[in-house]
Amino acid sequence: MAQSRKTLRPQVHRQLDPAAWTAAGLSPANALIVAVILISTVFAVVETEPVIYGRFGRWFERAEIAFGLLFLFEYAARLWSVAEDRGDQSALRRRLRFVSSPAALLDLFVILASLVPVLGLNASALRLVRLLRIIRLAKLGRLSKALRGLSRAISLRRYELGLTVALAMSVLIIGATGLYWIEGDLQPDKFGSVPRSLWWAVTTLTTIGYGDVYPITPAGKIVASLLAMAGIGLIALPAGIMAGATHDAMKSGGSTNEGGV
Amino acid sequence: MAQSRKTLRPQVHRQLDPAAWTAAGLSPANALIVAVILISTVFAVVETEPVIYGRFGRWFERAEIAFGLLFLFEYAARLWSVAEDRGDQSALRRRLRFVSSPAALLDLFVILASLVPVLGLNASALRLVRLLRIIRLAKLGRLSKALRGLSRAISLRRYELGLTVALAMSVLIIGATGLYWIEGDLQPDKFGSVPRSLWWAVTTLTTIGYGDVYPITPAGKIVASLLAMAGIGLIALPAGIMAGATHDAMKSGGSTNEGGV
Amino acid sequence: MAQSRKTLRPQVHRQLDPAAWTAAGLSPANALIVAVILISTVFAVVETEPVIYGRFGRWFERAEIAFGLLFLFEYAARLWSVAEDRGDQSALRRRLRFVSSPAALLDLFVILASLVPVLGLNASALRLVRLLRIIRLAKLGRLSKALRGLSRAISLRRYELGLTVALAMSVLIIGATGLYWIEGDLQPDKFGSVPRSLWWAVTTLTTIGYGDVYPITPAGKIVASLLAMAGIGLIALPAGIMAGATHDAMKSGGSTNEGGV
Amino acid sequence: MAQSRKTLRPQVHRQLDPAAWTAAGLSPANALIVAVILISTVFAVVETEPVIYGRFGRWFERAEIAFGLLFLFEYAARLWSVAEDRGDQSALRRRLRFVSSPAALLDLFVILASLVPVLGLNASALRLVRLLRIIRLAKLGRLSKALRGLSRAISLRRYELGLTVALAMSVLIIGATGLYWIEGDLQPDKFGSVPRSLWWAVTTLTTIGYGDVYPITPAGKIVASLLAMAGIGLIALPAGIMAGATHDAMKSGGSTNEGGV
Repeated sequence: MAQSRKTLRPQVHRQLDPAAWTAAGLSPANALIVAVILISTVFAVVETEPVIYGRFGRWFERAEIAFGLLFLFEYAARLWSVAEDRGDQSALRRRLRFVSSPAALLDLFVILASLVPVLGLNASALRLVRLLRIIRLAKLGRLSKALRGLSRAISLRRYELGLTVALAMSVLIIGATGLYWIEGDLQPDKFGSVPRSLWWAVTTLTTIGYGDVYPITPAGKIVASLLAMAGIGLIALPAGIMAGATHDAMKSGGSTNEGGV
Repeated sequence: MAQSRKTLRPQVHRQLDPAAWTAAGLSPANALIVAVILISTVFAVVETEPVIYGRFGRWFERAEIAFGLLFLFEYAARLWSVAEDRGDQSALRRRLRFVSSPAALLDLFVILASLVPVLGLNASALRLVRLLRIIRLAKLGRLSKALRGLSRAISLRRYELGLTVALAMSVLIIGATGLYWIEGDLQPDKFGSVPRSLWWAVTTLTTIGYGDVYPITPAGKIVASLLAMAGIGLIALPAGIMAGATHDAMKSGGSTNEGGV
Repeated sequence: MAQSRKTLRPQVHRQLDPAAWTAAGLSPANALIVAVILISTVFAVVETEPVIYGRFGRWFERAEIAFGLLFLFEYAARLWSVAEDRGDQSALRRRLRFVSSPAALLDLFVILASLVPVLGLNASALRLVRLLRIIRLAKLGRLSKALRGLSRAISLRRYELGLTVALAMSVLIIGATGLYWIEGDLQPDKFGSVPRSLWWAVTTLTTIGYGDVYPITPAGKIVASLLAMAGIGLIALPAGIMAGATHDAMKSGGSTNEGGV
Repeated sequence: MAQSRKTLRPQVHRQLDPAAWTAAGLSPANALIVAVILISTVFAVVETEPVIYGRFGRWFERAEIAFGLLFLFEYAARLWSVAEDRGDQSALRRRLRFVSSPAALLDLFVILASLVPVLGLNASALRLVRLLRIIRLAKLGRLSKALRGLSRAISLRRYELGLTVALAMSVLIIGATGLYWIEGDLQPDKFGSVPRSLWWAVTTLTTIGYGDVYPITPAGKIVASLLAMAGIGLIALPAGIMAGATHDAMKSGGSTNEGGV
């Protein structure tokens, strides 16, 4: 047993801790966990459909328990292998630190919530929380380098992007106020107040155009046309800003992709 | 009193005049004013909703008077502290210049309009004018550097951007004329004249597509498809132009964000 | 008379021929002509509206005759002043060459069509042809430099842009065929043939989404979702290509805007 | 006969094999084949329309047989001329290798399927497969250089593009779950499950907005507005990434278009 601890525990630790895995990509164990998280997310999405749940409900419940047990087993393995972390602390202190970390607390909470079905509907939402774990597992490696690159690009131009958001907000309010004046009396349920008009302004500026609200007077259509044109600029401006930013961020920060690709 | 003027007035001036505030960002007083302007804008938007105003109307009226008094107090403080401005002019001349500046006249007008409710509905619109003051207050600092950067980028390519607008206008008129010919007789209320068709052309070229107007004949659908494809180009072209322009503007003008970020 | 010809004709020629105008921008005469063309275009658009024409029809007819006479006068002035063109040819040969040029033939045709109202409806379309003349008049100057810059940018990446068009066409056909199979029997008037489905595919890929046609089965919605995602790429790809292209074109070709702006 | 083989077969081979054609562009024979493939694709699309097929059905059948025979003749010519390929292999082995290649097997299958009409409807889909052959024929030349350039650009930023896809998927699931909670009970046929809500989320995030599904409560509209804003970012982000990538790919890989254009 003492022997197996010497040989097994470091291996488990190497498999589970992304920082301890020196090879490229995810370790086999973490790749499996990512896959299981993705599958359990698909299950969490699909089981909300009454037609499917009505037929296969029993199987979804069983799958959910299986997922819960799997993640409980993973949690236990992490708790056991965390003692292998480098540093001067004792194994117990490391485990206590692991247990009290927000990420581990959230994990445990989600595991318990899916195994002890007392929260009803919201359990399905809690399972979506597991998606967050993928980000943590993928923290190292190329994807996270790409993530850092994009974050740096957005950060480089955060004032310019913030300005376009402020500009968009102003255009939204002005457009909504315009149609509130022009068609507020004609279509009171749609343009009878600025907040109501804002719904129309958002679906117009983002070029969605559901068709549940649209102007019917010539003046309203002219304002809507101006807002729609502004919408084109609203897409072109951030796209242009991001283009220069990604280029600069890749250059200055040392791109992920320039070396061995 | 003479003593307090010596110590208090320069401090108030430093707090209220963005040019006199040497530290980074906004001064606490101006940050507060920006916050109050944003809150009063939200109030001005929300109070147009009859359902909400019906219930909380009295509170909105009180809030509006509070905002008006606050801005009146701010106006008085600016009038008093403007005497601290550098230069050879007397305090009276500086105050007269301040009072007669278009920005201060507009401020005073909006303050009076919200305190003396005789203009009715339009008062809510006047309050939106306050948003303009944020731009003036934020004139210094990083955001305004970003604003200058974007303005320079747009200015650098103003002929190219103007050309895309001219191109878009031509495509709009040609498309609208096309559908006026093809479906003018079939759907006279929608395509019975070029101006009517233009409404459809705008909602198509900007890819909004409310669904209140669309072609029903094969020929009309072919013209609409061509217009829709042109719409893609209409987004791609300015986005591409802006991308190169922001890049060049940041480079040549000294970016806000390259130094201490 | 011989004296006035010596002093007046070169001046008229300088005013009317963009190549003879050495100062920046358009000559006053050509600027006026551009303005009149734009106004006559607005008239041509607005007069198709029955509500407006019913009231002001007489005025539109008079305006149209006035525009026609003005353009006839301009045509005569060009014919007269073209003799000032540099070169060895006689004045007569120059005038004959002018009269027989396609641009002048088209001009004359449009002028006659608007003065002799026998063609009925199509006259309004012919007047749109005048817009083409703006391009010819603006051939010199900054706007045309910008036009050359954009054309060069598009030309630089014409194979890449052509590929995205080919890709879009393939995606359109595949998507339309997919929904023809899946919902052809369910909604025969909408997806009953590939050409009918293509209308849906175009409004989806370009993200217009009028709402006159949409899938109603889960399988159809999945195919539509894939097509919609591809639509995002279809906008991002040419925008990205154009971004690099305009940047390169401005650089290599000597930008309009880098010098004295 | 031996003489004609010496003169004719190398010529046919040079015409049919893109690798053997040393001049720029496609060989006349392959250009003809590409044209015929495009025409047969148009026929395959149009003949699904009952109104047209009802009238010209006989002609479509004849055209289909003609196309089939033409492609059969082309197949035979390729089989015959493939013996001219460079290398030590015997003519028979080269032909066997040609016949057993996946591309030739697919070709033969499509030819037989269009000549022996037993598969019914699906034959029209099989004919679309011919479009794939265009890619193979165009493998050499400028278009394929552009294709390589674009592929390299996408490959250079595959992690960044993958991240935006992952981000989009997360936003889709979160938005769909949000509206499932908020309006699941109000509009059960539209938001009654996460998969049903996903259809709405896709049409919103991609800014299509058919108008068959949209939120009706204030809370739902706020979530939808946030999703719509995210949709703008979803277009701007990949466009920005692609802009930098195409620029870099053209530079590092040696652009198609910089030399002789």
